[in-house]
Amino acid sequence: MTVRFYNSLTAELADFSPIVPGRASIYYCGATVQSGPHLGHLRSAVVFDQLVRWLQYRGFTTTVIRNVTDVDDKILNKATETGEQWWALAYKHEAEFRQAYRTLNVAPVDYEPRATGHIPEMVQLISTLVQMGHAYPAPDESGDVYFDVRSWPNYGTLTHQKIADMHDAEDADPRGKRDPRDFALWKGRKPEEPASAAWQSPWGEGRPGWHIECSAMAGKYLGAQFDIHGGGLDLRFPHHENEMAQAQAAGRGYANVWMHNGMVTYRGEKMSKSIGNVISPEQMFAQASPMAARYYLGQAHYRSVLDFNPDSLRDAEAALARIMAFVTKAWKSVYQSATDVGFLSEELAAPSNLRVPEKFAAAMDDDLNLPRALAELHETVRAGNSALDGKDGANTKKRLDEVLAMVHVLGLLDPKDEQTNRAGQPALDALTALVDARLAERSQARSDKDWARSDAIRDQLEQIGIVIADGPDGASWELSDASR
Amino acid sequence: MTVRFYNSLTAELADFSPIVPGRASIYYCGATVQSGPHLGHLRSAVVFDQLVRWLQYRGFTTTVIRNVTDVDDKILNKATETGEQWWALAYKHEAEFRQAYRTLNVAPVDYEPRATGHIPEMVQLISTLVQMGHAYPAPDESGDVYFDVRSWPNYGTLTHQKIADMHDAEDADPRGKRDPRDFALWKGRKPEEPASAAWQSPWGEGRPGWHIECSAMAGKYLGAQFDIHGGGLDLRFPHHENEMAQAQAAGRGYANVWMHNGMVTYRGEKMSKSIGNVISPEQMFAQASPMAARYYLGQAHYRSVLDFNPDSLRDAEAALARIMAFVTKAWKSVYQSATDVGFLSEELAAPSNLRVPEKFAAAMDDDLNLPRALAELHETVRAGNSALDGKDGANTKKRLDEVLAMVHVLGLLDPKDEQTNRAGQPALDALTALVDARLAERSQARSDKDWARSDAIRDQLEQIGIVIADGPDGASWELSDASR
Repeated sequence: MTVRFYNSLTAELADFSPIVPGRASIYYCGATVQSGPHLGHLRSAVVFDQLVRWLQYRGFTTTVIRNVTDVDDKILNKATETGEQWWALAYKHEAEFRQAYRTLNVAPVDYEPRATGHIPEMVQLISTLVQMGHAYPAPDESGDVYFDVRSWPNYGTLTHQKIADMHDAEDADPRGKRDPRDFALWKGRKPEEPASAAWQSPWGEGRPGWHIECSAMAGKYLGAQFDIHGGGLDLRFPHHENEMAQAQAAGRGYANVWMHNGMVTYRGEKMSKSIGNVISPEQMFAQASPMAARYYLGQAHYRSVLDFNPDSLRDAEAALARIMAFVTKAWKSVYQSATDVGFLSEELAAPSNLRVPEKFAAAMDDDLNLPRALAELHETVRAGNSALDGKDGANTKKRLDEVLAMVHVLGLLDPKDEQTNRAGQPALDALTALVDARLAERSQARSDKDWARSDAIRDQLEQIGIVIADGPDGASWELSDASR
Repeated sequence: MTVRFYNSLTAELADFSPIVPGRASIYYCGATVQSGPHLGHLRSAVVFDQLVRWLQYRGFTTTVIRNVTDVDDKILNKATETGEQWWALAYKHEAEFRQAYRTLNVAPVDYEPRATGHIPEMVQLISTLVQMGHAYPAPDESGDVYFDVRSWPNYGTLTHQKIADMHDAEDADPRGKRDPRDFALWKGRKPEEPASAAWQSPWGEGRPGWHIECSAMAGKYLGAQFDIHGGGLDLRFPHHENEMAQAQAAGRGYANVWMHNGMVTYRGEKMSKSIGNVISPEQMFAQASPMAARYYLGQAHYRSVLDFNPDSLRDAEAALARIMAFVTKAWKSVYQSATDVGFLSEELAAPSNLRVPEKFAAAMDDDLNLPRALAELHETVRAGNSALDGKDGANTKKRLDEVLAMVHVLGLLDPKDEQTNRAGQPALDALTALVDARLAERSQARSDKDWARSDAIRDQLEQIGIVIADGPDGASWELSDASR
């Protein structure tokens, strides 16, 4: 097998060839914590979590870094508006992102560096760039330092643009710049800005520009050259172009593969605060279970646009329910014990013995082709349901194992913490015992041809949301969806 | 009302007099993330959470900072042992602490600075101390910088010791020290240490000493002088003494009030890895619900030793169950609707209208006298149960409101996320309907004097863990503790 990815840098699909065999070093852009997450952030996290899980399934040892950008113009401005401390505001939003990642079962990364925690590394990188002639302090008294885009012939390589075709950088007053496309590496402290958001530097008090943070942090944790850099398509330019320029102009190799996920739209329109069509995690989680939300966010090809419309979450919920209904039935059939799908995660803590079907693997290997992979998952569920109907035990178990392997590698079985999983267990255990006892009484009533009593028991159970299905092996039951 | 605290610095109880009226700035020592939390860490977090919640109840606007010390000798050594990256190891343990705090319903603090994120602030503070003659670079080639304890006449003030009576600092080779009690502010990089754990400084590459971190971070977020510094008694010396010396020798006021919580022992013995009697959060949560664990950790006076023995969690669980049983019954009686205590938290999101009884408030005002406060809570529960028995609706509601106000300010009603609260709800709803129906049948059987049938229904329910209590108003039931 070979995993291959579309590399934005070369604009080509290519086999993944890691720097160190068997290892994959990955950096992907996390949050600028000026506000809580929106669907675009969450799609990106789910997409790169799918990537990491797939690489791990393929045997790679991964090192994953996701940044938290916790100081920038917007954070400072917003804190001024609300009267909060900028660091408290940033920390509060960082926690919101963390909670949303957790709800969506995005596996913890290896490290989550904060930009403010890496000022020395940034100052050092900027100093190197100044020394090498690729950056210059502004000639005015702003205290800014700019990257000199015309000094770096490779500027534009990532996004396949010529400098002349690029628009101006909007990050600072252009009057001190040699070229309006030059961008800020360091921003001198403005008198109205808080002292706590300014650090000493060779260019006076100030703070880092928005792009230098990632270059410095990726370099610190993954080295001068690493395997994969990810992020949303909206970050490709100028952010990633600038990141790459900063690192490479300072003599570092930086990322070999650049992967960009597509945007999330609302009924075909870009989500934007000004249009008022931004969907928040709260809105999403009010309409869908966490795993259905994850299913929805991860179902398109990662490079495609993912459209949101009122039906999309419902469709995802239904698709996931079909899969889980098969798992529940098949599990009961194979292991002769009822289980709540939520509890399967424990059984699956280390499903290293379970293998996904070849077609699913081929789809994932092919630049994470999720639509094809999900089609195979649903095909396996259909085959599994046929096996169940046909009482083909061996085949039912085979399909169950395959489906479990697929939902596991897709992160759709959420282990959460034990607390959550066990919260309903005493009630569920008691309910199971009580319903089973009632069904035994009903069975006895049927044997006695006491149809009135048998019907009364069924009606009573159905009234409280318990649906009974009579089969050749006796009655089975489940809590109806309406009661959930 | 006046809140008063025992100040370790003055060894006296004194009225709390904040620097800014109506505001309280608080720093308390969090984790050195060399490993996951133990009971001592968690007690400290619960104690200072009780402090913060009480100050908020008393109308103070709080700013709370809790540090994460993410680089030190032990972290580096442990990472060398396990082959992990030191920052990944630190981050993993940071997440374990965060999870334990969350499980125990410790409210989020305003900011949680990492030591590695504040190297420039530490270097600046050390430079000031060197300039002022209170610190010196080691004369050897270690690259260390030490605090000169004999240069600072107030050294020992916090712990009421004379320098001559103190034991030697154990943080570095004493050969470069002017006095063996001098402690490290900066530690030169040793050849075997990773480059990523070393930062440039005027004294060469290295990293901060263990004590300087808190002085620098408290100063950054709370200012040169702030209200309260908290931590475990084991941190009083040398850590807090050194923190205070570093800050005050540099001309800062530092904390006005020092509060130290007592240790957790196991059957009277100090918990220690070498004795093998350390209780982990996992062990505790396996034996007690999160809120019972919180009750246990917060039940003693914070300055007392808290002993752990196999009964202590069970006792806490029983005490909390008594309280919650009253809340559930009284709620049902007052509002004519059953509720699961877990769901009360939603009703209580903003219980600003509920007031605690005067005696409870007086106990909390008096240096957080939790034993007295809890006695008042249980007294109110007893009074409430009497009111319930006596069908005194007005008094039942009064006691319910008081109990709710007390458990809320003690943080014993855990809102968690909706996910957790709702996890068992469909099963619980169905169980409730089914058990109520069975009890109605039993009631009918008793009316019919069909004792055999009545007993059979009771036995069936008891067998699955449902305990029935017959009362004058009919039968009530609950899931037995054994089934939980």
